[in-house]
Amino acid sequence: MKAYLLTEMTWPEVKEALQTVKLAIIPIGAHEQHGPHMKESCDAVLATEMSNKLAERLYPYVLVTPTVNMGVSIHHINFPGTITLQPDTLIRVLRDMVWSLKQHGINKFLFLNSHGGNQSTLSVACTTLTHELGVQIYYAKTTASAKEAMKKHISSTLYGHSCEREVSEALYLAPHLIHMDRLEKGDIREGQWRLLRPGNAIQGTYQYEEMTANGCIGDATKASYEAGQEMVEEALDNLTESLLQFL
Amino acid sequence: MKAYLLTEMTWPEVKEALQTVKLAIIPIGAHEQHGPHMKESCDAVLATEMSNKLAERLYPYVLVTPTVNMGVSIHHINFPGTITLQPDTLIRVLRDMVWSLKQHGINKFLFLNSHGGNQSTLSVACTTLTHELGVQIYYAKTTASAKEAMKKHISSTLYGHSCEREVSEALYLAPHLIHMDRLEKGDIREGQWRLLRPGNAIQGTYQYEEMTANGCIGDATKASYEAGQEMVEEALDNLTESLLQFL
Amino acid sequence: MKAYLLTEMTWPEVKEALQTVKLAIIPIGAHEQHGPHMKESCDAVLATEMSNKLAERLYPYVLVTPTVNMGVSIHHINFPGTITLQPDTLIRVLRDMVWSLKQHGINKFLFLNSHGGNQSTLSVACTTLTHELGVQIYYAKTTASAKEAMKKHISSTLYGHSCEREVSEALYLAPHLIHMDRLEKGDIREGQWRLLRPGNAIQGTYQYEEMTANGCIGDATKASYEAGQEMVEEALDNLTESLLQFL
Amino acid sequence: MKAYLLTEMTWPEVKEALQTVKLAIIPIGAHEQHGPHMKESCDAVLATEMSNKLAERLYPYVLVTPTVNMGVSIHHINFPGTITLQPDTLIRVLRDMVWSLKQHGINKFLFLNSHGGNQSTLSVACTTLTHELGVQIYYAKTTASAKEAMKKHISSTLYGHSCEREVSEALYLAPHLIHMDRLEKGDIREGQWRLLRPGNAIQGTYQYEEMTANGCIGDATKASYEAGQEMVEEALDNLTESLLQFL
Amino acid sequence: MKAYLLTEMTWPEVKEALQTVKLAIIPIGAHEQHGPHMKESCDAVLATEMSNKLAERLYPYVLVTPTVNMGVSIHHINFPGTITLQPDTLIRVLRDMVWSLKQHGINKFLFLNSHGGNQSTLSVACTTLTHELGVQIYYAKTTASAKEAMKKHISSTLYGHSCEREVSEALYLAPHLIHMDRLEKGDIREGQWRLLRPGNAIQGTYQYEEMTANGCIGDATKASYEAGQEMVEEALDNLTESLLQFL
Amino acid sequence: MKAYLLTEMTWPEVKEALQTVKLAIIPIGAHEQHGPHMKESCDAVLATEMSNKLAERLYPYVLVTPTVNMGVSIHHINFPGTITLQPDTLIRVLRDMVWSLKQHGINKFLFLNSHGGNQSTLSVACTTLTHELGVQIYYAKTTASAKEAMKKHISSTLYGHSCEREVSEALYLAPHLIHMDRLEKGDIREGQWRLLRPGNAIQGTYQYEEMTANGCIGDATKASYEAGQEMVEEALDNLTESLLQFL
Repeated sequence: MKAYLLTEMTWPEVKEALQTVKLAIIPIGAHEQHGPHMKESCDAVLATEMSNKLAERLYPYVLVTPTVNMGVSIHHINFPGTITLQPDTLIRVLRDMVWSLKQHGINKFLFLNSHGGNQSTLSVACTTLTHELGVQIYYAKTTASAKEAMKKHISSTLYGHSCEREVSEALYLAPHLIHMDRLEKGDIREGQWRLLRPGNAIQGTYQYEEMTANGCIGDATKASYEAGQEMVEEALDNLTESLLQFL
Repeated sequence: MKAYLLTEMTWPEVKEALQTVKLAIIPIGAHEQHGPHMKESCDAVLATEMSNKLAERLYPYVLVTPTVNMGVSIHHINFPGTITLQPDTLIRVLRDMVWSLKQHGINKFLFLNSHGGNQSTLSVACTTLTHELGVQIYYAKTTASAKEAMKKHISSTLYGHSCEREVSEALYLAPHLIHMDRLEKGDIREGQWRLLRPGNAIQGTYQYEEMTANGCIGDATKASYEAGQEMVEEALDNLTESLLQFL
Repeated sequence: MKAYLLTEMTWPEVKEALQTVKLAIIPIGAHEQHGPHMKESCDAVLATEMSNKLAERLYPYVLVTPTVNMGVSIHHINFPGTITLQPDTLIRVLRDMVWSLKQHGINKFLFLNSHGGNQSTLSVACTTLTHELGVQIYYAKTTASAKEAMKKHISSTLYGHSCEREVSEALYLAPHLIHMDRLEKGDIREGQWRLLRPGNAIQGTYQYEEMTANGCIGDATKASYEAGQEMVEEALDNLTESLLQFL
Repeated sequence: MKAYLLTEMTWPEVKEALQTVKLAIIPIGAHEQHGPHMKESCDAVLATEMSNKLAERLYPYVLVTPTVNMGVSIHHINFPGTITLQPDTLIRVLRDMVWSLKQHGINKFLFLNSHGGNQSTLSVACTTLTHELGVQIYYAKTTASAKEAMKKHISSTLYGHSCEREVSEALYLAPHLIHMDRLEKGDIREGQWRLLRPGNAIQGTYQYEEMTANGCIGDATKASYEAGQEMVEEALDNLTESLLQFL
Repeated sequence: MKAYLLTEMTWPEVKEALQTVKLAIIPIGAHEQHGPHMKESCDAVLATEMSNKLAERLYPYVLVTPTVNMGVSIHHINFPGTITLQPDTLIRVLRDMVWSLKQHGINKFLFLNSHGGNQSTLSVACTTLTHELGVQIYYAKTTASAKEAMKKHISSTLYGHSCEREVSEALYLAPHLIHMDRLEKGDIREGQWRLLRPGNAIQGTYQYEEMTANGCIGDATKASYEAGQEMVEEALDNLTESLLQFL
Repeated sequence: MKAYLLTEMTWPEVKEALQTVKLAIIPIGAHEQHGPHMKESCDAVLATEMSNKLAERLYPYVLVTPTVNMGVSIHHINFPGTITLQPDTLIRVLRDMVWSLKQHGINKFLFLNSHGGNQSTLSVACTTLTHELGVQIYYAKTTASAKEAMKKHISSTLYGHSCEREVSEALYLAPHLIHMDRLEKGDIREGQWRLLRPGNAIQGTYQYEEMTANGCIGDATKASYEAGQEMVEEALDNLTESLLQFL
């Protein structure tokens, strides 16, 4: 299958593609610890792979830009290797990307994000840049819309980071991210973080090591290629269906 | 009942209160259109009233600061009278407030917000300021945790702005905000906004007039004092219970 | 008497009012200690009340916006409860307010300020925003122009904060701000601040506690409703006369 | 007479001087039109000369830094040659200067300013930098304290820019700034600016060409060396007396 | 050979590596047109490959971070597909990266940059961040020090972008970047840019299309694997030798 | 000879000059230690003198603005008296100057800089402001193009600050900057700075006192008026020739 990937193209190829392209997908990941069994580039790689697959579905109407390979990860900073951008830095990078692509005639954008810690910054970026630059911006968490497959494959009540969901996605999209011989269940610690999880009366910031000693939650040992395939493909179906209505 | 309200106190009274106070509630609202039947100060007033009631519950451990009476309302700007802050401006105001209160020995904060459009900015503020100023910050949407009362009293599928929920809350907390003789159901327009509502595969920005001609959604004519009372009190129960574990 | 107060209006009412409104009054106060006998919201409340009265005089040509209820109060920060904005934060808030109101067709603004500590920041804001946003901005200290009434009613040589002038104004405009049973004269301390008062060869910053132990200057026990009435009404006469020439 | 002028010194000389120096005088001027008879560098030159004379009086306790030779002059921008800094730019320059000098052990500063348009920005800078950098900052308008000499020598009711005051000062301090054969009285135009002059109920921004066709106010033809000498020396007396109490 | 590549590691592996690592290499590239024969990700890929090879040489004392895959490319913006960061954005990204890695105990950094348009921004970043964050920062253009191999292999007088140098480097480091069947010599246009090239009396900005119609300079058809190998290895020798003296 | 020097002109003279002026020369210097034999204003004075001479050559097509008399000198901050601007501050000053002059119809600019520490900041400023303000900006190091005279007169291998080059220039342009009776050769210290000098594989920041104990490099005792004259005049020839092609 074909897809317009900006990193793989020459300028005459881009010029040709711009005759049909209406929307740019900007893959947004993170560089942060993913427990003992996943590489720290996990989110950046998964956002890239999802973007590429979505671009295949929407060929020749979209292109994929270079990946924003670091994100807002301050809650992981106490695990070795994590790099975090300030929210304002991430917004500035996105402003420059959107501005540049607008010079080439693109006026619609999808921020395709694989990292939960980026979501509120992307919401702010979407509000701000839409008005400031006069463009249309959408954003999505990569596989959040795969509700049926998640119900089927995920049994942990606390999941979402280097868990059966994420490892399954990686098994399907980028198995090199995983050390299969080191898969571990989340080593959960008790603490006040439980009071701040989504669904509680109040929200707030806590550091990841308060919640988990090994940097994982959920149960990575339950991951499978099939679960990954079903979640990714269901999400791609949903993303494709939504975006087609905006092209 | 008693509550520490900073706007009503002299400095010797504040000095006395600081012997027990551990957390400051910062009420955050907005100034924006609320359809033909509610005043534009609605969110600022409701945030203030909720904060005051919560402070009664948590006396003498919390105080209420002056209200942030404008917020992020760019999606309402095309309705007369709406004023919007840029997200970065709101964060700066909150930084200055938290910094100031820290000088007085307060190290815990609750951003109590009544306006959905502020939520992602507050999430970013919470992440940023917690680390920058070395304090603990929590944030909450005023009545979002009143899940049972909402299930009981709200029948509209699309609600959340000048609807039966918000008008009911106002009937209980601040009835002067409402023109009971002008109550109107949302005058919904069809459009692409439906594809961007929470729960869809992608999110994005749209202007409120694309969704509703009169600036309301839901059905304000179904509002009642009782519904408001139940939602507000259930939310206060939940907020109180959560916060007590952090004091 | 009638006045257009944005906080009290619905959007259809604002739409109607905009047919005659040419200028927006932005009340600007502070949240800071006012000695043992006045509430810390003093400046915010007085700015609001003055704005409302001025709007009555100038009906239907002006409207009053929400109040900027915190200001530049770093010199009071060592008294419990004081909250201060950085000058740059205050300017950003005003920029956003002016920008928003310009979207509704308003091109003239009055910053009506009750707090001396805001004056130079407002002068900078006026210069900056007038050019940046292409509007006309004026600013005034609420009762500074009431020169005759002040000469008649004020005997202290050092006055201007929770003194006979301010308490008199509050007696007329917002008596709930005052604890009449706690009125105190300023408890003045000697120090280098005297060398920096207006009229000296050099100016500079000092903290309020260097000047007064109880947070007051002047003599609040000499305040009266009549003095307040005369100062407020003389100032309103002057403000009205000036503004009428700009409408 | 001797004075420590940083621009004229080598580093070993500065090292020696720092054994007694306690305060740095930062001369602040502007680059703006001064009518047909004065050079546009007028304010920068006068601020420098005043600073140097003041440093002679206060030798060996003060030094003079390089001159900030441009300022806030947006109200003159429509006259050819005027250059204006944004207020925020001027504050940043001063922050960097104060920070640098603090590295050399200086903790007290006088912003000695010759240009009215800078005053509110300097007030904001003083408030901000005093707290941010932990230093003591004072500011003064060069000859504003020469009240007796001004009463004696100035007859114009509207003066303050390229008028008998400023030209007299220049005759005494820097006569090369003046074209004596081109001296002109201010060519005053009528307009709303009169309503915004100091002493009126409201203040605001206007462009200088609204007020004067030739860029002057007052009456430069009445200037004299003697008037300049008396104003400058009276001001120096006052500045010296004040500063001695802070050294 | 072994090298510490942060994108390929888990946090326990990073923790182990940090026992010997003293310096982080930050690869910095660009996303911009590279003529008809090279992919737009060229600079990002070459910076990454050079960093990885250098890390092998300096194992176990350095690690390689994620790549900054966009840079300052405003001069290429008129060629389809180019994305540019503002210089200030690039500095902010680097500040966040250096800050993050400092949390993990790393205090020395090399910005290894493949794109000429980034050099002055990196010089500013180096000066600024060294002092602001209290670390040691070095920067280098990837192969600039390979003077002997360049003298031997490069015959064009105007070269440096998608030329024999860059294509040779890619042939050795990342041949997938090149379309060998489309190699073109630079299609040079005459213009004032010649007056602004390095070595002239004045410098300045011009757009790349003023200089070359196909986006290349030099002569890519003269590129070879051997030239690339010699330039890269000579540069690696020099970089290794220099860095060893700082470890 | 004649030259348009903005500091020496009245506005009617500027108005007249603008009929022929096409480019503004902005002299940019620094305030920093220059060893025991030169005044700290050296760079600011030399930039001014060079600009004035260049303006004579290019009369009546250019004018000279006020001098930016401080620059980026953080590497000299440990020598008494040095003042440094942050790079961002310098860019803001230049933005305001260019913006102001554009209001007067000038669209071409030369940043004529005498201080090496400013060069990369000026390169960034040139790139940024050219695009942001829609003008043409060039920049040059004052005498860098005098290659023949330098080869003839400079024998030190390490030179460039208060050395035979700079002292010679000053002997010709501004002899009052020099104490001839204190001329010293650079008192060079050994250290890692050698590894970071131009021409090495890596660049980086070091403090000047690591390199030289007396703040000089090179050998000032070899300076002469003739060397200065030849370097300055050769550079002026080159600058004039280049600029004539852009006017």
